[in-house]
Amino acid sequence: MSGGLDATHDPALRSWVASANRPDSDFPIQNLPFGRFRVDGQPWRIGVAIGDQVLDLRLAAQARALPESLSESLVPLAAGDLNAFMALGPGARVALRRALSGALAAGSVAQASLSSCLVPQARAELGVACEIGDYTDFYVGIHHATAVGKLFRPDNPLLPNYKWVPIGYHGRASTILPSGQDFARPWGQLKAADAEAPVLRPTARLDFELEMGIVIGGANAPGEAVPIERAEEQVFGLTLFNDWSARDVQAWEYQPLGPFLSKNFASTIAPWVVTLEALAPFRRPFARAAGEPRPLPYLHCDSDAASGAFDVGLEVWLSTARMREQGLGAHCISRSNFADAAYWSVAQLVAHHTVGGCALRPGDLFGSGTLSGPRPEQAGSMLELSQGGKQPIQLPGGEQRSFLEDGDELSLRGVCERPGAVRIGFGACSARVLPARPRP
Amino acid sequence: MSGGLDATHDPALRSWVASANRPDSDFPIQNLPFGRFRVDGQPWRIGVAIGDQVLDLRLAAQARALPESLSESLVPLAAGDLNAFMALGPGARVALRRALSGALAAGSVAQASLSSCLVPQARAELGVACEIGDYTDFYVGIHHATAVGKLFRPDNPLLPNYKWVPIGYHGRASTILPSGQDFARPWGQLKAADAEAPVLRPTARLDFELEMGIVIGGANAPGEAVPIERAEEQVFGLTLFNDWSARDVQAWEYQPLGPFLSKNFASTIAPWVVTLEALAPFRRPFARAAGEPRPLPYLHCDSDAASGAFDVGLEVWLSTARMREQGLGAHCISRSNFADAAYWSVAQLVAHHTVGGCALRPGDLFGSGTLSGPRPEQAGSMLELSQGGKQPIQLPGGEQRSFLEDGDELSLRGVCERPGAVRIGFGACSARVLPARPRP
Repeated sequence: MSGGLDATHDPALRSWVASANRPDSDFPIQNLPFGRFRVDGQPWRIGVAIGDQVLDLRLAAQARALPESLSESLVPLAAGDLNAFMALGPGARVALRRALSGALAAGSVAQASLSSCLVPQARAELGVACEIGDYTDFYVGIHHATAVGKLFRPDNPLLPNYKWVPIGYHGRASTILPSGQDFARPWGQLKAADAEAPVLRPTARLDFELEMGIVIGGANAPGEAVPIERAEEQVFGLTLFNDWSARDVQAWEYQPLGPFLSKNFASTIAPWVVTLEALAPFRRPFARAAGEPRPLPYLHCDSDAASGAFDVGLEVWLSTARMREQGLGAHCISRSNFADAAYWSVAQLVAHHTVGGCALRPGDLFGSGTLSGPRPEQAGSMLELSQGGKQPIQLPGGEQRSFLEDGDELSLRGVCERPGAVRIGFGACSARVLPARPRP
Repeated sequence: MSGGLDATHDPALRSWVASANRPDSDFPIQNLPFGRFRVDGQPWRIGVAIGDQVLDLRLAAQARALPESLSESLVPLAAGDLNAFMALGPGARVALRRALSGALAAGSVAQASLSSCLVPQARAELGVACEIGDYTDFYVGIHHATAVGKLFRPDNPLLPNYKWVPIGYHGRASTILPSGQDFARPWGQLKAADAEAPVLRPTARLDFELEMGIVIGGANAPGEAVPIERAEEQVFGLTLFNDWSARDVQAWEYQPLGPFLSKNFASTIAPWVVTLEALAPFRRPFARAAGEPRPLPYLHCDSDAASGAFDVGLEVWLSTARMREQGLGAHCISRSNFADAAYWSVAQLVAHHTVGGCALRPGDLFGSGTLSGPRPEQAGSMLELSQGGKQPIQLPGGEQRSFLEDGDELSLRGVCERPGAVRIGFGACSARVLPARPRP
């Protein structure tokens, strides 16, 4: 398990970047998440968020304000290549994190040289942090799987494999969009239950999915399984992820090989990858309830039982076009928590994904699956919140929603908080639904 | 539709590379497929197969034996980057093909400079032709879908969506292996019907899938659909593809989101991508039988009806360890044809994949799905050939096979032949099954 507590987590640690010290900042000096950004159409750079600024790691490397021992790590970062940095392994990440923590701390002599390496986040365009190779979407949210299963199979919502197999399927990397990139409502084949034939239409059941993204940093060769005890060494960090879904397209297309066009038109990923080290104070036991089957040995890990879960509070905020016209702010439509929602740990996902010999590569992405909490109002999708469209949710200003409408802007938030630790945030993962494009 | 007939298809055209003129060569001067190779661990190069040689396009660019107008196209090729060349579009490919056809033709003045740019294929390591971004596996083989469906649903083998939706799902790019790279039998969760719990075991039902690979050369932006009339412009060429499958793992894991570990441990791709231009003499009408539903307008294309199918003869060859010990050659266990097996055209796959706005990128790969012919002995998988394992096939030397055993080597072959045209081959797509690796 990487990332025990050290001085980088000291709650008394403050930064010379004043905005990082605000109690409501997502990016205190204890966080230091990685992302990719650019300014004025210049080439993409790798940066670390600190308060409302980004530390430009190319400029930082040029300023020689960090220890000489990091020079090898800084080469790919200065070149804008987070994948190559991730491939150096957790040691390089931990060392850089310690150096940045020292250099950005109040009183550091590095302030003089690093202060010119800061870019206000408000001036930067934030992209996708790395090149995503293969993207896998899991289905770890047991409350989601149960609620969705109930819509189709009221008496038998969870399939027999759910508590044995970390269910997952391959997704589409080419349409993972950076937060803030809006997308058009997708077209797709829909078939009404009583219709003879399907039609091509813009989806009428556009949904979001509240997920965590798990960014893979390590590599295993084809044929090589990663044992669960070493599984977290393959993980670089976590981020927020929204796997937009067209439920009506999904219902018609998904048999027998799973979702396809209903999921591959757009997924939105947050700009910042929060490292496992930053999350160390927020680990919790990953415990199965009594009576649940014991995982097969390749999925069993003593350290999971001690600290396999991540206590990340999650929120979903919705703002409609009419709400914005009326001057109403976004409305929180759901609150959940990664630790409460997930039936499988991150380590279990890595161990399972590789047990048959599947190769992972730096920059691969796992989606957790929809992270609905145990109560109905904690659901991570409109499908659940509206009970399959039968029970619309109420919004400020008098509107209702069963599924998403054009102009709706959806934003995911993630925050780690506990007494005695500094709040760690994930930033926002947001996009707006544009009207369907004309089709010839 | 790209690639009408021109002088490059002239059956009288012969090459100064003598081996290209043999009637049984896969790579006559009318073919000129692209691939990636290296010699003695040197960097990967892009080459074109001609007879039993590879024309090294880096050396050819340096030799300045090709027209000056191609210099822009040769930059990415000389750099070993087929993806960047594909991104230049069909025009660059057609122009280079014409130039190579002229330069490699018997009597060409380019022989003097190009003869030193040839590498014997026997000396070269052949890799995967391009960097594969996203890989999608389709399910166009209607005889396969019917036969497999019958094993599960004897009365209703084809699901209601099959004749409306080109069924597909996302696969794993990281474990697409070059032909000749052997792989270990994968482990996975298996559950016997009468068992209380699953176990982790090496698969006992290892299978192959006879597929064509469709290499995407063009790009469309997220949100942008490719109209079917222009769909083939996005395709660079075809190759052979074997999507190895663990049927027992698949049966336990695939509900409700589709195949995952049962398909992502290894897929084998042939080294050569045969361009659409080379295949122009082998196009056939893509016709639906009377009574089949008319495709929705976005999937309907008049040129498909004229020439949407590819007449590629396919063969599956098996050699077991014992057969090799006994000095027996490989045995052909199935013969099929792309045109007879596919319910959906290549153009329809591109149009469907993008209709919801999914972005394709140069280097993306489609698998066709298993291309079983209409008769049982034309099946493209062991699952079908052995009727779900109930009826083993007989091999020379007295062995039987229901599924693949350790030491089995499976090889796919593809050949286009018709009177008045020169035979175009796809080379071989081969790999051997190694014993499962020990797991701790």
